[in-house]
Amino acid sequence: MIGRMVEIEPPPSNAGTARLLVQCADRPGIVAAVSRFLYEHGANIVQADQYSSAGGYGRFFMRSEFELGGLDVPSEELERLFEDQVAPRFDMDWRISLSDRRPRVGILVSRSDHCLLDLLWRWRRGELPIEIPLVISNHDRLRGDVESFGVPFRHLSVTPDTKGEQEREVLEQLRETEVDLVVMARYMQILSGAFIEQYPSRVINIHHSFLPAFAGADPYGRAFERGVKIIGATAHYATEELDEGPIIEQDVVRVSHRDTREDLVRHGREVERSVLARAVQWHIEDRVFVHGHKTVVFR
Amino acid sequence: MIGRMVEIEPPPSNAGTARLLVQCADRPGIVAAVSRFLYEHGANIVQADQYSSAGGYGRFFMRSEFELGGLDVPSEELERLFEDQVAPRFDMDWRISLSDRRPRVGILVSRSDHCLLDLLWRWRRGELPIEIPLVISNHDRLRGDVESFGVPFRHLSVTPDTKGEQEREVLEQLRETEVDLVVMARYMQILSGAFIEQYPSRVINIHHSFLPAFAGADPYGRAFERGVKIIGATAHYATEELDEGPIIEQDVVRVSHRDTREDLVRHGREVERSVLARAVQWHIEDRVFVHGHKTVVFR
Amino acid sequence: MIGRMVEIEPPPSNAGTARLLVQCADRPGIVAAVSRFLYEHGANIVQADQYSSAGGYGRFFMRSEFELGGLDVPSEELERLFEDQVAPRFDMDWRISLSDRRPRVGILVSRSDHCLLDLLWRWRRGELPIEIPLVISNHDRLRGDVESFGVPFRHLSVTPDTKGEQEREVLEQLRETEVDLVVMARYMQILSGAFIEQYPSRVINIHHSFLPAFAGADPYGRAFERGVKIIGATAHYATEELDEGPIIEQDVVRVSHRDTREDLVRHGREVERSVLARAVQWHIEDRVFVHGHKTVVFR
Amino acid sequence: MIGRMVEIEPPPSNAGTARLLVQCADRPGIVAAVSRFLYEHGANIVQADQYSSAGGYGRFFMRSEFELGGLDVPSEELERLFEDQVAPRFDMDWRISLSDRRPRVGILVSRSDHCLLDLLWRWRRGELPIEIPLVISNHDRLRGDVESFGVPFRHLSVTPDTKGEQEREVLEQLRETEVDLVVMARYMQILSGAFIEQYPSRVINIHHSFLPAFAGADPYGRAFERGVKIIGATAHYATEELDEGPIIEQDVVRVSHRDTREDLVRHGREVERSVLARAVQWHIEDRVFVHGHKTVVFR
Repeated sequence: MIGRMVEIEPPPSNAGTARLLVQCADRPGIVAAVSRFLYEHGANIVQADQYSSAGGYGRFFMRSEFELGGLDVPSEELERLFEDQVAPRFDMDWRISLSDRRPRVGILVSRSDHCLLDLLWRWRRGELPIEIPLVISNHDRLRGDVESFGVPFRHLSVTPDTKGEQEREVLEQLRETEVDLVVMARYMQILSGAFIEQYPSRVINIHHSFLPAFAGADPYGRAFERGVKIIGATAHYATEELDEGPIIEQDVVRVSHRDTREDLVRHGREVERSVLARAVQWHIEDRVFVHGHKTVVFR
Repeated sequence: MIGRMVEIEPPPSNAGTARLLVQCADRPGIVAAVSRFLYEHGANIVQADQYSSAGGYGRFFMRSEFELGGLDVPSEELERLFEDQVAPRFDMDWRISLSDRRPRVGILVSRSDHCLLDLLWRWRRGELPIEIPLVISNHDRLRGDVESFGVPFRHLSVTPDTKGEQEREVLEQLRETEVDLVVMARYMQILSGAFIEQYPSRVINIHHSFLPAFAGADPYGRAFERGVKIIGATAHYATEELDEGPIIEQDVVRVSHRDTREDLVRHGREVERSVLARAVQWHIEDRVFVHGHKTVVFR
Repeated sequence: MIGRMVEIEPPPSNAGTARLLVQCADRPGIVAAVSRFLYEHGANIVQADQYSSAGGYGRFFMRSEFELGGLDVPSEELERLFEDQVAPRFDMDWRISLSDRRPRVGILVSRSDHCLLDLLWRWRRGELPIEIPLVISNHDRLRGDVESFGVPFRHLSVTPDTKGEQEREVLEQLRETEVDLVVMARYMQILSGAFIEQYPSRVINIHHSFLPAFAGADPYGRAFERGVKIIGATAHYATEELDEGPIIEQDVVRVSHRDTREDLVRHGREVERSVLARAVQWHIEDRVFVHGHKTVVFR
Repeated sequence: MIGRMVEIEPPPSNAGTARLLVQCADRPGIVAAVSRFLYEHGANIVQADQYSSAGGYGRFFMRSEFELGGLDVPSEELERLFEDQVAPRFDMDWRISLSDRRPRVGILVSRSDHCLLDLLWRWRRGELPIEIPLVISNHDRLRGDVESFGVPFRHLSVTPDTKGEQEREVLEQLRETEVDLVVMARYMQILSGAFIEQYPSRVINIHHSFLPAFAGADPYGRAFERGVKIIGATAHYATEELDEGPIIEQDVVRVSHRDTREDLVRHGREVERSVLARAVQWHIEDRVFVHGHKTVVFR
């Protein structure tokens, strides 16, 4: 099967693109219905992914990115029509997301700067099409770094006694700044179930181990004690069960007997920041679907 | 977007599955037309992948795997109908492949046994759903190994003078055994353009370097001389231009100054055999599309 | 610091090499004493590695490979002299190993053939300079494969009632065949502490997960349930505590939501066989030192 | 061979450590002579590595890190004694480096900030024990970033006509600031042989491909055209032959047909910055020896 390289120049599409995200119980006809709907309304599909769990007898997931340019109706109207004409037949859990709308990301951090600065940097460089209305920390240490990026920094210290109160204050701040996604960039506080309920599958945490290995505290110390030959990091959605949330991305790095505990921490930082950055990028590009306690990631 | 884990048991489907493989110039409506066609004929899609090059303005590639069980017509009829009703509108390059038909693979090999034995082993273990009607070598060295798997071995020696003649003989043997795919499992002879024309995008070669690095002869020796810190292997479709064919898969392994030239050869073997095995598996599962001098691989 | 490439041809050294392996509490003068001893007896060092834990205040490990050719005394005499003149001053735990003596490896296996066949292959190909006097299995399934390599196969079935008895029989067989190293190549029986005591740091097991993740039974099933994005394998010395022994080597492979449980098993096999092969190779080349419940590996 | 975990606390060693770096034609007695010398002068060895090329018949390399605390003479005197008593016997190319002396690193950069900022960060975080007296760029674009770290930034623009003159100016600035190591952190100008002669094996360049693949201009563009499945980066010492210098470190990342040329650039940035950081770290820790046109790296 030999293809010719056809590389027609795309027309200037100032309208940008939108993404139709669908999941529902799997059954025949879903793709036909959705693709026909998009076609009839002039949506030119730029990228499309779908996945059927359990070999077509489980749950169906679909991500279709299409140009707004050729639509015969405004995107709001497209949503209304989809709600009326397609979604009900398949009992779909769905939404349309406009890719030119920049998600608002609130970052929580404690003392370590590597994940935070990496995100700020990618944001400033334009790699991450997001807004960062606020960085909150339980320490005042990183204020200078954050403010040097022109990003508001809020210090909300916490003690065992004030934990609940501080969390409510964090929540309040995130609400006020209308945050869509919360990123725990090495935030060393455990969020309550009540907090997470406010952002279901919208709180991303980076754990500094290759979960489920070394869940909980001091993973590098325990990795050093155990004498593992590879360490890693895991980005997952925070849930009530600590370190048990759906895994978005993981990566590893090789270590040896020569590496001290401090070396593990240093090597680990590299993996943490890149794993977290990938997870955030995929989330804001609507590539991550939660499927029970697992994820479907369309890379 | 939270999904419930729905894991309905699939019905016993003795009918197996088929794969519809399509590529054509991209334009709106292709997915709608294809998915509607499959739906209307009772095809339950098990897995589907598509890709639009140049952001939707280049070439379109689609792979749909569906169950034969629910079809309202025999698969031959389905092909006829697709040819009449869908393909012409989009000038499609397409085919339907029955996944229960085992492709016939002819293996060419010289002296090194690692890639050959790895393939034979995966075949015997049922990992590779193929037939292996014939192994041809320009040396008699590996006859015992091959025959111990119950696979016919044919020794066709070659000298500079007999090169053309031997190649014609190889070709003849492959034809007689009705081979669909030719795998060069470390076959150290260069095939002529005339030979390759007989099997367009159906001759897979494993090159023992990370192409385009160290194309040509003695890649490990040259990697050793150059002092690289990583070596690799590349599986690609053979073309007239040596080591220039579309790359299917590549992988690497880390080496150091301590590794001798012989160590590189030894480490390289690991990569060669796994890279070749993946390439063959993806090819026979119809996951590889050739796009000019590149590949689209639906993994 | 620029070096000239000096590549003098080595003299024909039929005498082969020996390895001096030392560990002891760290303190100044060890290297001076050992290297002087070797020098004064005409030992030309081919490769040398050393490691000081805790930054020079913990335990010292040394591996020196030297040519037997130039020795002024036979190697047995060299051992006696080292025992008298060097070892006592530093309370050394030491031995000299002749690299031309091929260690005798006994392989235990159950039903899965991939690790077993991979070892047999490397052995036959000359990659692993060992003897394999015996393969023991609790199933008769792999007899044909093993015997086709000309290696004796012994079937010792086991039931809950006969477990102790069968283990004693296994031990007896290993003793009779004078095995130096026991390799559990996917042997799905737990060895008793009494058994392992007979081969301290000389029983290598391959666990089909990235320990400490998924210790115990069905690691791939649990990895699938947990939705990890990377799976791995771990080669370690067996100890009384299941899956808690000193880790020799680990490696991983990336997986995705598309991979079924069966896919994980298939991908895992690749990692298992290469990780186990590396661990066995390093062990027989005397590159692995046990340090408490960790290892020092001179690669 | 079972070791006890002995973890004696090291004494407060304010004196820091020194590294003895040696290379010479290989022959028996070198280690004995050097280790005896260090022992007799009270040097407690913290870490030691050695390598013999060509199996003990080529060139010998040694790195010994020892505590200055227990020395019976000042380090200057130690150098004099080594020069007199040890070096001549073996015609050694050697030096002693004090690890508390922070090497002075001058950074050259053009428009891309990722490698530069990564180095500045690691430096500020204390990961890289260096001084950065100066950053020079042929563009003024990154001044703000550099100066926000409190590091002097010098803009020296270049045109085809002023190339030689600008290079002399760069050289002059590096001399004035007494730079030990020059790092080309994506500096898109080719340095002349005359320049490099001033810093033999002391100019580190990061090339944005997996050398020797895609040497020269636009490696990502060519990687995209070739359709490789893995891209990489290479840190090497700059030499007169462009992209031919001794390779210090390389690493790779997997890509697919879905990745655009821009995606390759983005993924590549990750590899570039970590590969360059590792190369710089190893260089300043005196772990890299140049051996002809290759390197020996004691990791």
